Amino acid sequence: MRAIELDGVGGPEVMRWAQAPDPKPGHGEVLIDVVAAGVNRADLLQRQGLYAPPPGATTIMGLECSGVIAELGPGVRDWRVGDRVCALMSGGGYAERVAVPEGQLLPVPEDFDLGAAAGLPEVAATVWSNLVTTAGLRAGQLVLIHGGGSGIGTHAIQVARQRGARVAVTAGSDEKLRRCAELGAQVLINYREQDFVEMVRAESSGADIILDNMGAAYLARNIQALAPHGHLVVIGMQGGTTAELNLGALLVKWGNLHATNLRGRPATGKHSKAEVISEVRRQLWPLVTDGTIVPVIHAELPIAEAAEAHRLLDSSEAFGKVTLRVRD
Amino acid sequence: MRAIELDGVGGPEVMRWAQAPDPKPGHGEVLIDVVAAGVNRADLLQRQGLYAPPPGATTIMGLECSGVIAELGPGVRDWRVGDRVCALMSGGGYAERVAVPEGQLLPVPEDFDLGAAAGLPEVAATVWSNLVTTAGLRAGQLVLIHGGGSGIGTHAIQVARQRGARVAVTAGSDEKLRRCAELGAQVLINYREQDFVEMVRAESSGADIILDNMGAAYLARNIQALAPHGHLVVIGMQGGTTAELNLGALLVKWGNLHATNLRGRPATGKHSKAEVISEVRRQLWPLVTDGTIVPVIHAELPIAEAAEAHRLLDSSEAFGKVTLRVRD
Repeated sequence: MRAIELDGVGGPEVMRWAQAPDPKPGHGEVLIDVVAAGVNRADLLQRQGLYAPPPGATTIMGLECSGVIAELGPGVRDWRVGDRVCALMSGGGYAERVAVPEGQLLPVPEDFDLGAAAGLPEVAATVWSNLVTTAGLRAGQLVLIHGGGSGIGTHAIQVARQRGARVAVTAGSDEKLRRCAELGAQVLINYREQDFVEMVRAESSGADIILDNMGAAYLARNIQALAPHGHLVVIGMQGGTTAELNLGALLVKWGNLHATNLRGRPATGKHSKAEVISEVRRQLWPLVTDGTIVPVIHAELPIAEAAEAHRLLDSSEAFGKVTLRVRD
Repeated sequence: MRAIELDGVGGPEVMRWAQAPDPKPGHGEVLIDVVAAGVNRADLLQRQGLYAPPPGATTIMGLECSGVIAELGPGVRDWRVGDRVCALMSGGGYAERVAVPEGQLLPVPEDFDLGAAAGLPEVAATVWSNLVTTAGLRAGQLVLIHGGGSGIGTHAIQVARQRGARVAVTAGSDEKLRRCAELGAQVLINYREQDFVEMVRAESSGADIILDNMGAAYLARNIQALAPHGHLVVIGMQGGTTAELNLGALLVKWGNLHATNLRGRPATGKHSKAEVISEVRRQLWPLVTDGTIVPVIHAELPIAEAAEAHRLLDSSEAFGKVTLRVRD
């Protein structure tokens, strides 16, 4: 098969669409003929040598894909060759074929575009596991979503609204904020011009849940913006990893701070990828497949143009996901 | 009535057993004839002017007491004059009488010593709300309790063991550790001589729950000692409030950090004192009143010797609670 290989680490130019060994599905795995793959910030870090795949995972980039099942490994019972699926992975999506544990698959209905489905597993699993499972999202709460125009942001806005929450978002342009509002966001904060702490406190006693991709840079202000008993969930550290924490400021509001990711989680068991996907499939997927929650795809590029896709994601110009088309 | 009044702020000598206005039970409150009051570190801070009572609370110290109901305020239905009770309060325990919202009362059976009951509401509510409600304590987990010989520590050891957890404790002397072992602690760490991170990791992949009273001083090491998906619950800041936090170190283990207290919580509603006491009464109190979980009282002093009680708690020589006897 062909896959995106890396000529060392560095800029987008190190990526090359080249021959690679065919993967074989192990026990409990299926082999997918990849139709499209989602691009994630983790891929950009991996390309730069800043984010090694977890032990045992393929070195090929790509944490999610869509496609059709081509082969079943031993022990797989619930899936058939020919099934249309999308999948959450530890890597391997930037390729014509990938082997995936069966617990990480989501079914894609006949009338649902497989190209669009490639951009859903990461955002669905991230948003559900963090907003609902970890932070206990409930109707009537105020949720602050940083980076409302990101792939995760555009999905989180919709999920939070569907669950009956009020949604505040930050973004770097009024155009992005306008599009966040179309998806349901109600409090629009241009972080270049406005203070999110003030804006959130003007709405309420603070945000009951904050979904944060900035890490250290926003830590102190996020705690200021948190409502009593609120949950700050850090899922990215684009603003650095280490910051001063005032435990007293957290304690006076009985605050909760969580830092999580998906990639390093085991395939099965407690807190595993399979557990997250199972919850997504049961509770969130019906709203996705019936069109209530829509995929937001900024651009789909041919896999051979992966370099351009990385530049696009890195530019912060994208609204929603960037995906790579592998086959028609 | 008489109560402990403060002649300004300062050392234990500013406390004076003196005349004070009688409290009146408001709507939904009962008036308690106090038999004994528990002493807490928060009282020492309040005496020094470092911990103001929450808005609306009495300025008299004392976050818990036991006694007999002397009078019912309007709207109280579930309690009777003469009922033996102990209570969680925002203040007022260092007195002959105190008015308490009815949702903050726990019943004390006829055969249970009212003196010992004075030392239970704070530890029961703190341990239950943090270990069980916040951190989700389950059988088979490893729980690290800092300050195993404190009032909270001695109670937490017993609760965690009753829930089927494995218990590690830190303390400053082998004698305290020996007594923690008698209460059920299995991993004994003398923090003057041993490294709790190493000790906990030698047992397991880390502690699933850490109950911490040291705050800033232990923050980085507590995160090191945490197991994947573990919960670090900060309930005291004897080691300072502000420390450097490495969010990356928390994220690689999907860690959860909580900082909480009880005193500032509202009387009723979500996350209120009444909600915590209701859970304690339903789930923990049967194990206390049947003697499975025992009160650990280091010393009971007459209320007129409150200064000595404060010196004793401050000395870190106490094992378990220090209480003050108000009437026979």
